[in-house]
Amino acid sequence: MPLFALFTDFTHQGPYLGQLKAALVSGAPGVPVIDLMHDAPPWDPELSAYLLEPVCRFLPAGVCVLAVVDPGVGSARDSLLLEADGRWFIGPDNGLLEFVARRAGARRCFRLPSPSGEVSPSFHGRDVFAPVAARLLADGSDSLGCAAIDFPWRDLAEDTPRIIYVDGYGNAWTGIRAAMLSDQALLEVNGQTLTRANTFSDVGRGQAFWYGNSSGLVELAVNRGRASSVLDISPGDRVRLVRP
Amino acid sequence: MPLFALFTDFTHQGPYLGQLKAALVSGAPGVPVIDLMHDAPPWDPELSAYLLEPVCRFLPAGVCVLAVVDPGVGSARDSLLLEADGRWFIGPDNGLLEFVARRAGARRCFRLPSPSGEVSPSFHGRDVFAPVAARLLADGSDSLGCAAIDFPWRDLAEDTPRIIYVDGYGNAWTGIRAAMLSDQALLEVNGQTLTRANTFSDVGRGQAFWYGNSSGLVELAVNRGRASSVLDISPGDRVRLVRP
Amino acid sequence: MPLFALFTDFTHQGPYLGQLKAALVSGAPGVPVIDLMHDAPPWDPELSAYLLEPVCRFLPAGVCVLAVVDPGVGSARDSLLLEADGRWFIGPDNGLLEFVARRAGARRCFRLPSPSGEVSPSFHGRDVFAPVAARLLADGSDSLGCAAIDFPWRDLAEDTPRIIYVDGYGNAWTGIRAAMLSDQALLEVNGQTLTRANTFSDVGRGQAFWYGNSSGLVELAVNRGRASSVLDISPGDRVRLVRP
Repeated sequence: MPLFALFTDFTHQGPYLGQLKAALVSGAPGVPVIDLMHDAPPWDPELSAYLLEPVCRFLPAGVCVLAVVDPGVGSARDSLLLEADGRWFIGPDNGLLEFVARRAGARRCFRLPSPSGEVSPSFHGRDVFAPVAARLLADGSDSLGCAAIDFPWRDLAEDTPRIIYVDGYGNAWTGIRAAMLSDQALLEVNGQTLTRANTFSDVGRGQAFWYGNSSGLVELAVNRGRASSVLDISPGDRVRLVRP
Repeated sequence: MPLFALFTDFTHQGPYLGQLKAALVSGAPGVPVIDLMHDAPPWDPELSAYLLEPVCRFLPAGVCVLAVVDPGVGSARDSLLLEADGRWFIGPDNGLLEFVARRAGARRCFRLPSPSGEVSPSFHGRDVFAPVAARLLADGSDSLGCAAIDFPWRDLAEDTPRIIYVDGYGNAWTGIRAAMLSDQALLEVNGQTLTRANTFSDVGRGQAFWYGNSSGLVELAVNRGRASSVLDISPGDRVRLVRP
Repeated sequence: MPLFALFTDFTHQGPYLGQLKAALVSGAPGVPVIDLMHDAPPWDPELSAYLLEPVCRFLPAGVCVLAVVDPGVGSARDSLLLEADGRWFIGPDNGLLEFVARRAGARRCFRLPSPSGEVSPSFHGRDVFAPVAARLLADGSDSLGCAAIDFPWRDLAEDTPRIIYVDGYGNAWTGIRAAMLSDQALLEVNGQTLTRANTFSDVGRGQAFWYGNSSGLVELAVNRGRASSVLDISPGDRVRLVRP
């Protein structure tokens, strides 16, 4: 189904999301727009890449994801259009789309034409990506006239033993896919060793544990508490795999 | 009119709302989705219950409210579907729906079937409640095959003299319905006695007062100031009724 | 195209936006609603006025903007309906709409009738502005029966050398239109002098500069850093134009 989903580091503050959505609904009337997340690791396309692929698995085919973590906006960096298993992704060529591309069964990649017309050098989301996305879902990919290219691969490890995100509950997401670990795996962070539980209510109130979260990543959590505070961890911090 | 409204303690951070909305718009295309509020008292279904009923009075008949404050997610707790005066509510059986059920003129209650298929033990909002809600509005309640049950009542007081919520302006909502108090009522909190005003602009800048807020609850407020700071109050704090 | 856009100081907390949107989608089914911004300078219609006009330039004709920064809600202040170059604005008569009206090529202004029926004295957004906006886009402006009036002008400077807004990245927006300054202009704030750059990636990491932002205003920024922290500035602070 046709659908726009937005993944950015814009936060919900300011007029950025609203102006971008105005461009989308003007260009592709009737297509719904959903906010996927807007607190991706700011200015960090590589940490964000470990987050983008897992959270987008839950989107239906036909979706067009605008992925904007783009500290190089306005510089000479390219912009990409990627089709991955029937889902579309538009974003800067800075590593952000790496794992979406790697883990796709079927993949096509295009380079967006250089921006023309009135384009803010600090807001390609609104002035470049949104118009392309709107035309893509309104008129189809052929209407864009983009050049097909090989995906510009980056040298990134498949999983990263770091905290890549802390959510609104204080849960700390790692860049390790849960399917890579056994149920007996032990993780160490700041001198504390964590065992696995199935879900929050399986441990006592205030107890820390790790589990495979709802996006398929290893997450450090505390029942009815904030793991980020209890374990004193922040995005970028390392975790150690004591037993895989 | 068909409409989804979301009431949760998810905050706006992370991919939770986006993934849940993707499930809704995929399953019931064309039905609008609105965020009612996402900062319900975290992990506290009972305080949240005092908030849910008043804020939902302003929703049109035909709405389906997903109400998710669910610290027991993934445990053996049941999930409920409630029809109350033509509005639908889906959520965990943990007290959250108590006042919606109590104050409804006409009421029907159903138990949701146990989740089957791929269900994250930590995200029933996306994997259980959203698919049920989508089918409800797309195909009608008979399509769900849910068992009718008596509403599982909880032992909660009709009103609670506590702060149940602090909003973005610092206004402190109590769990007392304004219709329960006279205009001459006096409230005491942290040694300060508050009288009633009709609205903010009726008192001087910086002055504290109580009034019946736009959802029908007694609220402690300060004209152009933050009552939560001025009165040093937080959710859960008690207020005392000096004169009712 | 018919579209609602919301500009408020409500923040995203609480049920305010959700209840207001329920009123809009009930009254004008099928018209999309976008959040333009909800962190306008709280309780400050004049600072907000310098923000509203620039951020709304990116909305399509046919839009109806609900503009609500309204510390006088429930008092005797009037409410306005303004048509400015094919865009509609609804809000309180408190200066908020000043620059939208001033900078419009074609302009019509109306006074909203006094609220009747059940109206919360603290939430005209939901109970007055939203029903009017819904009827406007559903049935046309003639259906409202509003009295045409001259726009009630305020005595505000065209530009203001103050910080009017700090966004989620810590970028500090001034109330000066970028087109008013030369590329060689120098700005001073807290003893630091800033020169212009084209965009973030044109300066070194951590370096402060000014530039014309994506809404056409002079903005103080830091590459991959928070200008509000680096320069220690907040909304309302003054900037000095060393060389225009």
